[in-house]
Amino acid sequence: MTNPTIEGIDLRALFEPRSIALIGATDKSPWSLNTFRNIKDSEFEGNVYLVNRRSAVVHGEKTYSALAELPEVVDLVFVMVPTTVVLPTLRDAVDQGVRAAVILTSGFGETGQEGKALEDEIVAFSRASGLTVLGPNGNGFINAAEGITPYGLPIGRPLLTGSVGFVLQSGALASSVLQFAQTRNVGLSFLTAMGNESMMSVTDVMEYLVDDPATSVIALFLESVRDPVEFRRIAHRALQAGKPIVALKIGRSALGARAALAHTGALVGDNSVIDAAFEQMGVIRVRSLEDLILTAGLMASLGGGLPGPRMGVVTPSGGASEIIADRAEDEGLQLPTFSADTTHRLHEIVPDFATVQNPLDVTGYVVIDRTLMRRSLAVVAEDDDVDFAVLLSELPRVPGPDPDAALTAYGESAKNIRTTAVPTVVLSTVLTDVTDYGRSVSNSVDFPHVLGGIEHGMTALSNAVRWGALHRATVAENADVAVDPVPLTFDREPTGMWTEYSAGRLLAEQGVPVVPTTLASTAEEAVTAAAEFGYPVVLKAVADGLGHKSDIGGVRLNLHGPDAVRDAFDSVTSALTELGSRGVATVVQPQRSMDGIEMLVGVVRDPVWGLTLAVGLGGVWVEVLADAAVKVLPVTENDVRQAIEGLRGITLLKGARGTTPVDLDALARTVKTVADVAAGLGDRLQALEINPLMVNGSHCEALDALITWTATDEEKDEEFR
Amino acid sequence: MTNPTIEGIDLRALFEPRSIALIGATDKSPWSLNTFRNIKDSEFEGNVYLVNRRSAVVHGEKTYSALAELPEVVDLVFVMVPTTVVLPTLRDAVDQGVRAAVILTSGFGETGQEGKALEDEIVAFSRASGLTVLGPNGNGFINAAEGITPYGLPIGRPLLTGSVGFVLQSGALASSVLQFAQTRNVGLSFLTAMGNESMMSVTDVMEYLVDDPATSVIALFLESVRDPVEFRRIAHRALQAGKPIVALKIGRSALGARAALAHTGALVGDNSVIDAAFEQMGVIRVRSLEDLILTAGLMASLGGGLPGPRMGVVTPSGGASEIIADRAEDEGLQLPTFSADTTHRLHEIVPDFATVQNPLDVTGYVVIDRTLMRRSLAVVAEDDDVDFAVLLSELPRVPGPDPDAALTAYGESAKNIRTTAVPTVVLSTVLTDVTDYGRSVSNSVDFPHVLGGIEHGMTALSNAVRWGALHRATVAENADVAVDPVPLTFDREPTGMWTEYSAGRLLAEQGVPVVPTTLASTAEEAVTAAAEFGYPVVLKAVADGLGHKSDIGGVRLNLHGPDAVRDAFDSVTSALTELGSRGVATVVQPQRSMDGIEMLVGVVRDPVWGLTLAVGLGGVWVEVLADAAVKVLPVTENDVRQAIEGLRGITLLKGARGTTPVDLDALARTVKTVADVAAGLGDRLQALEINPLMVNGSHCEALDALITWTATDEEKDEEFR
Repeated sequence: MTNPTIEGIDLRALFEPRSIALIGATDKSPWSLNTFRNIKDSEFEGNVYLVNRRSAVVHGEKTYSALAELPEVVDLVFVMVPTTVVLPTLRDAVDQGVRAAVILTSGFGETGQEGKALEDEIVAFSRASGLTVLGPNGNGFINAAEGITPYGLPIGRPLLTGSVGFVLQSGALASSVLQFAQTRNVGLSFLTAMGNESMMSVTDVMEYLVDDPATSVIALFLESVRDPVEFRRIAHRALQAGKPIVALKIGRSALGARAALAHTGALVGDNSVIDAAFEQMGVIRVRSLEDLILTAGLMASLGGGLPGPRMGVVTPSGGASEIIADRAEDEGLQLPTFSADTTHRLHEIVPDFATVQNPLDVTGYVVIDRTLMRRSLAVVAEDDDVDFAVLLSELPRVPGPDPDAALTAYGESAKNIRTTAVPTVVLSTVLTDVTDYGRSVSNSVDFPHVLGGIEHGMTALSNAVRWGALHRATVAENADVAVDPVPLTFDREPTGMWTEYSAGRLLAEQGVPVVPTTLASTAEEAVTAAAEFGYPVVLKAVADGLGHKSDIGGVRLNLHGPDAVRDAFDSVTSALTELGSRGVATVVQPQRSMDGIEMLVGVVRDPVWGLTLAVGLGGVWVEVLADAAVKVLPVTENDVRQAIEGLRGITLLKGARGTTPVDLDALARTVKTVADVAAGLGDRLQALEINPLMVNGSHCEALDALITWTATDEEKDEEFR
Repeated sequence: MTNPTIEGIDLRALFEPRSIALIGATDKSPWSLNTFRNIKDSEFEGNVYLVNRRSAVVHGEKTYSALAELPEVVDLVFVMVPTTVVLPTLRDAVDQGVRAAVILTSGFGETGQEGKALEDEIVAFSRASGLTVLGPNGNGFINAAEGITPYGLPIGRPLLTGSVGFVLQSGALASSVLQFAQTRNVGLSFLTAMGNESMMSVTDVMEYLVDDPATSVIALFLESVRDPVEFRRIAHRALQAGKPIVALKIGRSALGARAALAHTGALVGDNSVIDAAFEQMGVIRVRSLEDLILTAGLMASLGGGLPGPRMGVVTPSGGASEIIADRAEDEGLQLPTFSADTTHRLHEIVPDFATVQNPLDVTGYVVIDRTLMRRSLAVVAEDDDVDFAVLLSELPRVPGPDPDAALTAYGESAKNIRTTAVPTVVLSTVLTDVTDYGRSVSNSVDFPHVLGGIEHGMTALSNAVRWGALHRATVAENADVAVDPVPLTFDREPTGMWTEYSAGRLLAEQGVPVVPTTLASTAEEAVTAAAEFGYPVVLKAVADGLGHKSDIGGVRLNLHGPDAVRDAFDSVTSALTELGSRGVATVVQPQRSMDGIEMLVGVVRDPVWGLTLAVGLGGVWVEVLADAAVKVLPVTENDVRQAIEGLRGITLLKGARGTTPVDLDALARTVKTVADVAAGLGDRLQALEINPLMVNGSHCEALDALITWTATDEEKDEEFR
């Protein structure tokens, strides 16, 4: 391995130690026994010392009563002593010159305030002493590539070595991950369950793995992303390095408590922000442990992604072909029609009564002629419209009547699959274990990776296609999405909520098309403004903190003359007065035709990912469609355009029967401008919402806007008074 | 087994033969060898004869050169002779008194016209001779319950016996089903891959399994449902018998070519009709082979469904708990908060620092105290708000260091799980095989069924909950949905397309609220009608075959006086004349307020399932939401109500901000009336569409309607002229 350094910390001592001391080793602890066995079973080449103050023999081995008695300064101490003894143990280790520690002991921050205080002490001491600590309350780690496994839970054998590096925010799930990876014949380079992440965090280990030549894919189980800035930086490094990151991030069902305006807030769940953030970072999000490992295993076997979504499929089964077709549609994978030449060549291979189509069913005659599949595969993979090929096949589960013949046949297939014109993925029909025998066959003829089952396999293929596209786009574009700060040029403090007039003015100054708006404090001012615009006009209430004006009769449309304007002014202002509103101003605007389509463009601050853009159909559509395109800021115009294309309401924008098609480029430009204003306003912005943005052909105009500012500390104090 | 008789055919001879002759047995055929081996491996107690005209010894056994030479008349002939010899072979068998045949031979209908003719001959002969035939082009069958396995593909051993009966419309997938069932420790009673279904069809075998006491769950892989009436009848019998049917029906991605009106047709894909039909029949539809077998296996272990959606979950892992919570939300399963009593009792069991919540994570201390899980389970299962319990646990994969202790522990758990206050399902974290060792542990301590992995397990649990509800509803209600025929009382032939006037009149006569409509052939008739309604009015073109009137300027709204009506009449009729329309009539209607919500209510004829109702939001919503509730006719008012509740647009109907809530009971009543009219019109109806049905509070009124009639044979002939 290389010698990566994180913030000046040398991770080699931690993850690639040449000697380990197990402190608190005891026959009474299953963790101690597991750790010792794991290290021994991996045939660790360095020295392992057991330290126990009282017993002379533990796990059948001689012990040392203190670290000081060891014949050398170890690279790593693996700490299993009681909670209260951890800090003294670390002090002792540092005194001896130790640079790295794994703390398996629990009872710290996860148990409450008292534990948290102890944990803080440990962190402070370790930082001050240059000691790198993994844990506490973790499992340790498995450096499979180097055969170093100081790890406290049983490791099912054989431990398969490969290039997937796992970082998990769950100790118990690590066993399931190991088990499933083994059954799918997915080898790992590294695995750790983080524990409390008091010093080393997920992102630190991710960065180690980005730099680790033994790792080609990083697989994550995440409960929370603690440092999104760091996470994004490392995700970008990984994408540039061509190392896919696949993540199972839980909490899909939670709707976060996000201070937001009603409409945009309702559209932007935590989950959609995570989806957006991950997609924008090139991190592939999956929804199950099975998908995590299958996707990671596939991409490790491919050395990255797939070149495109068009697959050519060869199967021995019509039923399986149809399941594949259904799942391909679900997953956005394409099954192009074979070219005339491909079709012609396939007809020469398959039986007369076979139907030549994609997926290809070579028919049950494969029982008689075992070469049907591989000969068909070679032809399919040469079709110009095929980005990759899929062969529905699997490893044997148990030895058949003639194992040698089977081995020869698998060997022939393996050679054929490895030499197809496009990448070929071998896919089994259902998700069952690769058995020991299957693995031995695979190893002896160097058979390619077998993706586990059509159901999850199609998801994994789709993930590999998506990542491939993201990777190519990043390498090709390296888009610059830097944003200019937006100055606040007019005489109002950015606090509380800015309604229509101020918000609209700010947006208009920054180049967002906003309907002309005149402030009117008296009925006559309103009439004057109306005359200037020409009738009909709209009159609306202006009041601080008043979000939904229409709910309290604060919006009057279609005013056709001075009397109507005066009436409207009176009724709106008296409604405001009744509500006890501090101000009683109104705004007058020209009445716009409602022939266009109402859009909603909002930006809200996500507590983890920061300012996040949501675009969707506005008006009543918001609640009915509950459909918004979400992107974490900053964004490119292309990001916005893609997001809009993905809306469920896109049919309407493209001109459903009777409506004028929207100029999507113009819309994307406007939304991008709004996004840049929001990003440029920076930390003070809490939320910004345009509802509606009226869109008619290529004409976009904001008819109403709101901005909420982040409370300053003083303002927050005031709230609590 | 019982002695079920399907249309006078005794299936005992076929599926429970006491003697079998393999005709065309030869060492050259893998199918012959497989079949022979399978029968021997199952220790079939009857006689097996090999018939081969030329070789004296096949598969190491003595052969007979003809059926006539056998010492007895066999119950079943298993036919593997060349295609052209099949018919003579059957003749010979019938001459000998044989009553049942499995035809493995292919080359029939599946290969084209010539093969089809041969197949037809075989069917005609068999019917005439009282011979029951399974196949041709099938695999044979596996009667696991009775140990009778005349089956042409290898059967992975051990063949696990249980109560799931499989009927598959795919030969090749049968091997995957067998493999996956074995790895999940799901035992089967019966399995057959149907082949060409020339005589015995899927529904025949389903009925056999409904009557088979060894079968408690029926699992189907379907490419097509050939006889929907029969399918529905048997599904109903199965539901009443308490035997769940689980089906993987492929072709989800296909959009059928259905003669339909534009709007409703676009909303009702083949797939949604299948979903609706299955749901209404109580058939649980799944999307993967894994889900098919996991759901069937779970329900076989439960002996039916689950009592409700509220689950109490006990796990040893916080991470797993969170994945379960996410998946529960996906699947509509509920995680009720534990009662104060439950919480109190759990606190006494789990470590101090554990958080007591649902799902419960007993923490890693389970490594020290293995009783934590089962003690917690007992408490959770006694919570009043819990319908069933889930224990996250699994069988061991390989023997541990102390197998006896493990066995004792699993035995204790098994006892505990079997005695919980509510049903308990054991669920593993990931989907891996139950190994041979795991199965032996399970068998020796009678450990409950282990559901395979959280991802698919939650789907299976949800399916069992859904089926339980359907089963209870059927037993409780036994709803009568008989429909009265609707007479056609007025002087127009039900042919072609009936637009607004005729369609509206028909619906109004049957009690559907339709906007008053007067036919006007001259401008003055239009003015007279308008005066009667009172202004404003609407004037619309009437012309046969004119679907979308508004596209050609055939609709004029908001006519406020006689001149406007005359103008409108002139422009509409000249538009019609320009189009070369045969008639130039118009209708006049009072102008309705558009304050309500436009709904679309349509009925279309599905080629498989017949008349199918679709209800959704109308107007522009149709294309944007693409959201319709679909039900196969006939329906109850409750069916309709449930369907409407499931619409994505339900927020709007329930009164999204600013709109009047719709009286859903009134809406359901109106839709039910429309559905009954459609069902009552019977075979002649091709499609019926009301668009819009204007709904305002409890007021529903059809503003426009279309009816398309099924072309008679003469009309079809005419089209081709």
